[in-house]
Amino acid sequence: MISVAEARERILAALRPTPAEIVPLAAAWNRVSATVVQARLTQPPRDVSAMDGFSLRAADGVLGARLRVVGTTPAGHPWPGTVGPGEAVRIFTGSIIPDGADAILLQEDAARNGDSVTVNEAVRTGRYIRRAGQDFASGDVLVPGGKRLNARDIGLMAAGNHPWVAVHRRPRIAILATGDEIALPGEPIPTGGIVSSNSHALAALVRACGGEPTVLPVAPDDRAAIAAVADAVEGMDMLVTTGGASVGEHDLVQEALTGRGMQLDFWQIAMRPGKPLMHGRLGRVSMLGLPGNPVSALITGILFLLPAIERLSGLPGDPPPVSTATLGAALDANDHRADHLRARLEQRDGALVATAFSRQDSAMLRLLTLADALILRPPHAPALAAGEQVPIVRLDLLGL
Amino acid sequence: MISVAEARERILAALRPTPAEIVPLAAAWNRVSATVVQARLTQPPRDVSAMDGFSLRAADGVLGARLRVVGTTPAGHPWPGTVGPGEAVRIFTGSIIPDGADAILLQEDAARNGDSVTVNEAVRTGRYIRRAGQDFASGDVLVPGGKRLNARDIGLMAAGNHPWVAVHRRPRIAILATGDEIALPGEPIPTGGIVSSNSHALAALVRACGGEPTVLPVAPDDRAAIAAVADAVEGMDMLVTTGGASVGEHDLVQEALTGRGMQLDFWQIAMRPGKPLMHGRLGRVSMLGLPGNPVSALITGILFLLPAIERLSGLPGDPPPVSTATLGAALDANDHRADHLRARLEQRDGALVATAFSRQDSAMLRLLTLADALILRPPHAPALAAGEQVPIVRLDLLGL
Repeated sequence: MISVAEARERILAALRPTPAEIVPLAAAWNRVSATVVQARLTQPPRDVSAMDGFSLRAADGVLGARLRVVGTTPAGHPWPGTVGPGEAVRIFTGSIIPDGADAILLQEDAARNGDSVTVNEAVRTGRYIRRAGQDFASGDVLVPGGKRLNARDIGLMAAGNHPWVAVHRRPRIAILATGDEIALPGEPIPTGGIVSSNSHALAALVRACGGEPTVLPVAPDDRAAIAAVADAVEGMDMLVTTGGASVGEHDLVQEALTGRGMQLDFWQIAMRPGKPLMHGRLGRVSMLGLPGNPVSALITGILFLLPAIERLSGLPGDPPPVSTATLGAALDANDHRADHLRARLEQRDGALVATAFSRQDSAMLRLLTLADALILRPPHAPALAAGEQVPIVRLDLLGL
Repeated sequence: MISVAEARERILAALRPTPAEIVPLAAAWNRVSATVVQARLTQPPRDVSAMDGFSLRAADGVLGARLRVVGTTPAGHPWPGTVGPGEAVRIFTGSIIPDGADAILLQEDAARNGDSVTVNEAVRTGRYIRRAGQDFASGDVLVPGGKRLNARDIGLMAAGNHPWVAVHRRPRIAILATGDEIALPGEPIPTGGIVSSNSHALAALVRACGGEPTVLPVAPDDRAAIAAVADAVEGMDMLVTTGGASVGEHDLVQEALTGRGMQLDFWQIAMRPGKPLMHGRLGRVSMLGLPGNPVSALITGILFLLPAIERLSGLPGDPPPVSTATLGAALDANDHRADHLRARLEQRDGALVATAFSRQDSAMLRLLTLADALILRPPHAPALAAGEQVPIVRLDLLGL
């Protein structure tokens, strides 16, 4: 059995970022940039006013001066003339400063009277003027490659005049649930059967991570049916299976896919829940075999599939972010397997308190949905008293 | 001028959750449930084995006993008989416990020899058996109404046999940028013009919050063109405009829409950046007028549009989550306007340190994209020294 960290490294080492595709800017939110994005223009393009008021020569803007208003320049309508001595041009936020002018008289500091305006507050050269290129100059890097694009990045790329963006293609993740006992929601359930939940939960996880899930039909516990999946996953970036990864006679995935040429990397990890976890490669497709029980499938999905999709997307593939909480109740010492305790979070006296559920049964999906966090217990972690600090993964922030 | 909190309350008070629609379970991730979702079956449906091994009568499972293997019951294939004294049935994780049996002998504690099996470790009644309904019983609430559905909820609803889910329709948000100076990315830019960034950044924000943006064509600074928008927004839940909300002569939105029957609620907030912020109602459509400069538009979007979309989605509409950081550099006392300082976050000796940028110009979009957080400065907040605690909004966690 290998460690969680080594398993993650080996899974990531086998993955390369997907190639780039072009998407319209409006569809680029939350995608990962495939190239550096540079400004195609200078912003602002010229010196512009930061306020509504009057543009004038600073020398003229002394208290009590009365100037002749010779024009007006709304934003988008530059004034073609030159502001001379004793003259002012009405100006607005974003308007280009007319030639000759080098100061702004604020609207609220001006008394307009027909064609003239009186200065009620002395101006200062350059004040309320945004210099050309103050935000960015043509050629400046606006967004680096390999960045998940947020709303601000979208705005900045728009401002830099990019209608299209090169992003990494969404990773294509095929999801296969196996087992004779499994039915799809709403379909007839065989006696003793259960409804498939793993495929749908993992498909949601893939979506949450920015991947494109393809849910394959459920495969029965039949070698030929499972082996046929090898053909169905061509063109995918990864195949994720659930079930079939333990040592039971009816766990045929490993056997069936090895028979179709799968190179097995490892199949057991020193962790709980989820000791049986398989990693391999089927031709060009990476293969991740998750445990069949729903809690284990989701937790191993968060620990291994999430970083794998990120790596495929052009990101580093960091583990889910770990923060710290105060223990709400004591914990026993841990054995040799890293544990991931389902826990509730609450704010108490300004501190974030994590309390593990008393039941940690890995078949209880409803309990998992009530968890706000996983408390991480490394192998051989000592017993801890309430009040001590523990590392946690916040599920509530991941959308998972 | 009203406070940020009052403005938010008034905006939210005018909004009702959108009606429900049915979506397939596979499309329900990140949507908001419109009804309580109850289990349609009991899980597990009967007592099942939690492990691979043999099912038997507990009385027979004493150390050294040798039992006759009378059958095998893979998951999904219940054994039709009754386990008698001295008998055992091969069983697997998830298989229904056969009649007569009340204990599990683990595979690793059993020595199989042809038709018989020897007990190498005494069994205990009920151990390794998952009781019927241990996860949930038919009729149990799996997901409350008004919850944003995460990957675990999707899995749980699947397990509860729901192929469809009732969710609130995505809020439809129309976005209108106004101004003669504005061009779309990639289109010809007039002299003195700039490229529209607000519409695209706000559309990304709407998407990030689970709404459906409709970006309207840019309206020139022309009363009739802006007034025509009143017809374009029928059926929308909200109209968001940018620009046109200050007091300049060319800020026509308020005038044009009031002429079309807009009921104005307020139009100024005691905050920075973004003092001019308009709220009203145009027929059945809520109207939010954001400032024209890109930094102000995005920050007011985060403070007001984000909770508005959440309220429309069936969530409470909480303000963006506020956490705490240690100040990296001193701050001056604040005036009467709530301020939102763009800041960088870093981990220093285990503490999260927030340092405001020295330039806070609200026209500098690139600087905003480099910010990890907003430091919240309430009206009349006192000067603070480095090392003191400040409330922050983490932009890096919002995808905004």
